[in-house]
Amino acid sequence: MAENQDYNEVELLSALKKRDVMKLRQIFTDFNIVDIAETLNKIDNPAELLFIFKTVPPEQTGEVFSYLDPDVQEHLIRVLSSNQLSDILENIYTDDIIDFMEEMPANLVSKILKSADKETRQDINHLLNYKENSAGSIMTTEYVQLKAEDTIPQALARIRKTGREAETISYLFVTDTSRKLVGTLLLKDIVFAEEGQTIADIMDTDFVSVKTSDDQEEVALNFKKYDLNALPVITNDGRLVGIVTADDIIDVIEEEATEDIQKMAAMQPLEEEYLKLSPLSVAKKRIVWLLVLMISATFTGLIINHFESVLVALPALTVFIPMIMDTGGNSGGQASTTIIRSLALGEIKEKSYGRVLVHEMAVASITGGCLAAFVFAWINIEILVGLVQLSGNVPAVEVAFLVSLTVFITVFLAKICGASLPIFAKKIGLDPALMAQPIVTTIVDALSLMVYFLLATQVFQLI
Amino acid sequence: MAENQDYNEVELLSALKKRDVMKLRQIFTDFNIVDIAETLNKIDNPAELLFIFKTVPPEQTGEVFSYLDPDVQEHLIRVLSSNQLSDILENIYTDDIIDFMEEMPANLVSKILKSADKETRQDINHLLNYKENSAGSIMTTEYVQLKAEDTIPQALARIRKTGREAETISYLFVTDTSRKLVGTLLLKDIVFAEEGQTIADIMDTDFVSVKTSDDQEEVALNFKKYDLNALPVITNDGRLVGIVTADDIIDVIEEEATEDIQKMAAMQPLEEEYLKLSPLSVAKKRIVWLLVLMISATFTGLIINHFESVLVALPALTVFIPMIMDTGGNSGGQASTTIIRSLALGEIKEKSYGRVLVHEMAVASITGGCLAAFVFAWINIEILVGLVQLSGNVPAVEVAFLVSLTVFITVFLAKICGASLPIFAKKIGLDPALMAQPIVTTIVDALSLMVYFLLATQVFQLI
Repeated sequence: MAENQDYNEVELLSALKKRDVMKLRQIFTDFNIVDIAETLNKIDNPAELLFIFKTVPPEQTGEVFSYLDPDVQEHLIRVLSSNQLSDILENIYTDDIIDFMEEMPANLVSKILKSADKETRQDINHLLNYKENSAGSIMTTEYVQLKAEDTIPQALARIRKTGREAETISYLFVTDTSRKLVGTLLLKDIVFAEEGQTIADIMDTDFVSVKTSDDQEEVALNFKKYDLNALPVITNDGRLVGIVTADDIIDVIEEEATEDIQKMAAMQPLEEEYLKLSPLSVAKKRIVWLLVLMISATFTGLIINHFESVLVALPALTVFIPMIMDTGGNSGGQASTTIIRSLALGEIKEKSYGRVLVHEMAVASITGGCLAAFVFAWINIEILVGLVQLSGNVPAVEVAFLVSLTVFITVFLAKICGASLPIFAKKIGLDPALMAQPIVTTIVDALSLMVYFLLATQVFQLI
Repeated sequence: MAENQDYNEVELLSALKKRDVMKLRQIFTDFNIVDIAETLNKIDNPAELLFIFKTVPPEQTGEVFSYLDPDVQEHLIRVLSSNQLSDILENIYTDDIIDFMEEMPANLVSKILKSADKETRQDINHLLNYKENSAGSIMTTEYVQLKAEDTIPQALARIRKTGREAETISYLFVTDTSRKLVGTLLLKDIVFAEEGQTIADIMDTDFVSVKTSDDQEEVALNFKKYDLNALPVITNDGRLVGIVTADDIIDVIEEEATEDIQKMAAMQPLEEEYLKLSPLSVAKKRIVWLLVLMISATFTGLIINHFESVLVALPALTVFIPMIMDTGGNSGGQASTTIIRSLALGEIKEKSYGRVLVHEMAVASITGGCLAAFVFAWINIEILVGLVQLSGNVPAVEVAFLVSLTVFITVFLAKICGASLPIFAKKIGLDPALMAQPIVTTIVDALSLMVYFLLATQVFQLI
């Protein structure tokens, strides 16, 4: 639980009502900017909001600004003067400016660019040009660069001079004259350095780094694998252009997991929080897959149509269709989910396909065997106690055997589909998360009903 | 992509073959411990592995040890002498020792405890007593404590004295005489402090902290909300007992997402990487839900059984059962997935239920309306071109109308179920992730087929 000591939003709101500038400034100095931003997001009166950003110094409002809701930010950018905006932008890290610029309409983007000082504007333009979700697009350009030949006092002087603007000075980067990254070190290393040592003596030359074009998922995997707290971003020829910090990666990891989860449920990922989107926007993300899957289910229907004579001869067989379909869907969903997640975490690669397939077939034998044995007993009981009535003179044991065998084969097919489709998708460059329960279910439904009816014609010699 | 400079595992392996201790030590000094651990995990010869841990100094092998696979660690703990083990343990952070102790059999746990020095042993015992997945269980006890009255040089002296063992000195914690946490600061603040200032002048008293018993998911939410890189853990009476760092939280976030994803596909979460588990262990995690859901599908079967006369009179109605069932399952899965993820991210709370329900009903009207319109046209076409044959003199348009209306109602019911079940689960203290597509599908299947048959009896006056 967060300990917000004495932060109390009523105090802020009442200071605002009274236009008590001194009190407001004090609140902005004393308390956590995230909590303050939460309060500001709730203010309905645009004049009050503007009052804050006009009277509280931008060193204090800058960071708060980056935690406001996009619509509140948009409103402020519209109404603030270019000078005021410029002061605020100067107090926000470039990667955070990029974050909210990506949400803004074009006229406001150009207002932001005009208001930013030259250096910031260059940084922004630079970052905006990197592909979405690339390391370049999430990095910050505010970091401390040292030289290998620096003595410890020289390095400390450099840190004091350039570090105030930096997003972190806990991680320091050493570049040569052509800005090539040659080493990394921690502020801690400098604190523990011995007299007379230079940066070259204490820096780490076996550092991990990423390229600007690397996908953010790749960046996250590096953070996870090497337990990092910051990571340098370099160009193809090794020049340092930015850094990514762990707090940014936490957001990336959550975002990527959310996207995968949404795709796995046959939706296009939502770009914002669910309740902030209109029902129409949510519906748009859902309708395409629903339509595609509904039409695909037609195929399963056609199989039933083809075997209608079987059902006419033995209508009780219809009773077990939901059980077979659901078991197939669930078995396939389990397999595909496991594989999709393992691929995302880098635990398995495309080349492990053989091993995965053998593994899933073994799992299918065990679970399918258990389910088949259980369903055999269960159907016998259902018929015995009269829950299900068989028309005609069909022996209960034959129906139980038919369903039981179908369940076993269905589980087997489902696990094979569930294991194969995500890996196949990855191989051809599609997102494996698309090959989850909904698609697997649709395919397995058709296969399992075909098996069911084919077996039925054999067992009961119906055709 | 990781830049491993010149790290080359062949070099390490050949140095090992030649028993070249100097070369081995140099490799351990120069290169990333995670990469080295990856190589060591592949060594099959136990004697070679032991040779490394006996000849390379523990300051270098300690951290590598914590990245080895559990079975390799277990083997080493078995064969190393108590003294060797003790030296290695001294070079691993306590939270990492806990991580691998939790995987070890009891006799090895006691060997580890005996080998650890008194202080480490106390820390381990302490951490082991915290509930699994609590903040206490993931925190580290190695951090730097300062006093509010320290001058800057005093603070620096304290950091130099106690900081070497600490997991981070970028984040510093200020306690009073009763070890109560009174403030936090960054090493950066000390670097930029002015002469004559004390820690009290520059520390932040409005810090965010968590309690030892708080769930790790709660801790992760704080990291995300406040963009933190480290977080102090305190007792109920405010005493500082540990810290959690961002790299640990990255693991927590991935783990929690993986667990949720697995639960949402009706599996108990796997405790290890998929391919490292035997098929039997994987099957055990999957079979329970498959059985429960299969039996539940019986109920849907009984509904079909009850309406058998409808199907006998109009067998073509069976053809549309898969389409209705799949559309219901997919619609419900979309809603439940969205709500489960939003709950996990803290974007919606139980008290938002009313708003969520209205939202989903609006989405249901739009998607259900589109699907119903589409399916009406589609079935007319199917019958027109002869893909589906209707026995008897039933007009195509009536069948299309029946299915279309059923689809609309099904989508509506599915979205309501999908929105309600996760929130209801949370309210009664269950994990919302359990109420995902598999359960929602089972419930909606039964409801939608009941609607289908009841409507059919009305439309065709069959009963």
